[in-house]
Amino acid sequence: MTPEELRHAFRAGQVRPTAGLAPGAVQANLIAVPREWAFDMLLFAQRNPRACPVLDVSETPSTVLAPGADLRTDLPLYRVWRDGRLDRETPDVTADWADDLVTFLIGCSFTFEAGLLAAGIEVRHISAGRNVPMYVTARECRPAGRLHGNLVVSMRPVAADRVADAVRISGRYPAVHGAPVHVGDPAGLGVHDLGRPDFGDAVEVRPGEVPVFWACGVTPQAAIVASGVPFAVTHAPGHMLVTDAPDRDYET
Amino acid sequence: MTPEELRHAFRAGQVRPTAGLAPGAVQANLIAVPREWAFDMLLFAQRNPRACPVLDVSETPSTVLAPGADLRTDLPLYRVWRDGRLDRETPDVTADWADDLVTFLIGCSFTFEAGLLAAGIEVRHISAGRNVPMYVTARECRPAGRLHGNLVVSMRPVAADRVADAVRISGRYPAVHGAPVHVGDPAGLGVHDLGRPDFGDAVEVRPGEVPVFWACGVTPQAAIVASGVPFAVTHAPGHMLVTDAPDRDYET
Repeated sequence: MTPEELRHAFRAGQVRPTAGLAPGAVQANLIAVPREWAFDMLLFAQRNPRACPVLDVSETPSTVLAPGADLRTDLPLYRVWRDGRLDRETPDVTADWADDLVTFLIGCSFTFEAGLLAAGIEVRHISAGRNVPMYVTARECRPAGRLHGNLVVSMRPVAADRVADAVRISGRYPAVHGAPVHVGDPAGLGVHDLGRPDFGDAVEVRPGEVPVFWACGVTPQAAIVASGVPFAVTHAPGHMLVTDAPDRDYET
Repeated sequence: MTPEELRHAFRAGQVRPTAGLAPGAVQANLIAVPREWAFDMLLFAQRNPRACPVLDVSETPSTVLAPGADLRTDLPLYRVWRDGRLDRETPDVTADWADDLVTFLIGCSFTFEAGLLAAGIEVRHISAGRNVPMYVTARECRPAGRLHGNLVVSMRPVAADRVADAVRISGRYPAVHGAPVHVGDPAGLGVHDLGRPDFGDAVEVRPGEVPVFWACGVTPQAAIVASGVPFAVTHAPGHMLVTDAPDRDYET
């Protein structure tokens, strides 16, 4: 299915994680906050560019990255947040949308997964048909105004002899998280049980494989919680906006 | 002189362009706007990243890029803008500073000039002891809120057989303007007389050389004029903040 067909399917009510869908098309994290919080959010992204590479900022529920898309309906699943707490998950946030919301689209590590696959590096959560595992680390982001929180990472197990290739390949995409922030040693990130991710699904780490961690666009959701943001709409982790922009636009 | 010694000399009143000074240290464009305009400015930068690569945003006249620096005194020359018009140039803006100013430090093409020189590519304005020539182009930036304006470029003449090298070398620094936006054909940018730059000094383009154009951090000053921003403080073109950050931090 093309990105547009996928968006129409999600608009019609289909709910599923988007990992592995429409290979070659950029996927994006979504976070919408009231205008009154928009400067803090943009500054938080600017100060934490590995976790929050901004692809577009929009003052309407539309984006140049996916002409014709309605950002209130065209993702498979959303989260609505009130006072820093998850209020509900829903496939349609039209009723929740406020005119003063400013929407941030943030790069997603799914972009470089196509490069990993092309190099013969297995992406475990795709072969297992699952959502990527994500963990809230003990590493604090650089704060911005009222926003603060810890770094969230995604994890992919990589065979020890392919770790260098995975670093090199993902490093070609600095605008969509780029190279890993941490390789091996989960405890060094404050991650004590890989089998219990904070978001997404656990995947097996086999003998001879190393857990490799990339900064994750779910980081703003952890900041919403930590900072008690009064209202926000985000995608549900792993349920991304599938855009029309080609991955190669973000390759250096 | 070290970056800190240069800042102290500027604080003491010395006025001169900073091209070629403290090689290896990042130099930065400065623009400070009232808090009420800060989101528009940050969004303008995000939407025009080639021209406005943000290195730091600060709500006080200080920066993590140059600990101990006072951003109101430590640049050699400033411009004060009122209602979109240049009010005056001055080496000290302490008296003009307002508590609600938000300061943006934006990458400067001087960073990749060290790389050009190291590769044996002459940088004409440095060898001529002049300020780099800058031109307001006919190319519109992507607007953001109330901010709009045209792209400003800097120009360096490069021997035809070194243009590819200049592209490759500057492309290693995407956070400080990166690769050229235009090579040759000034008219295609709406630049009709290279001998009359809008900012800085003209330099000679010799036979066998091609004018190469890079996006320039003076672009926000053109936006201040075009948009009638009520108040702003900027550096004077070519008179940059010399930071303590090493150029290599911005190399990919």
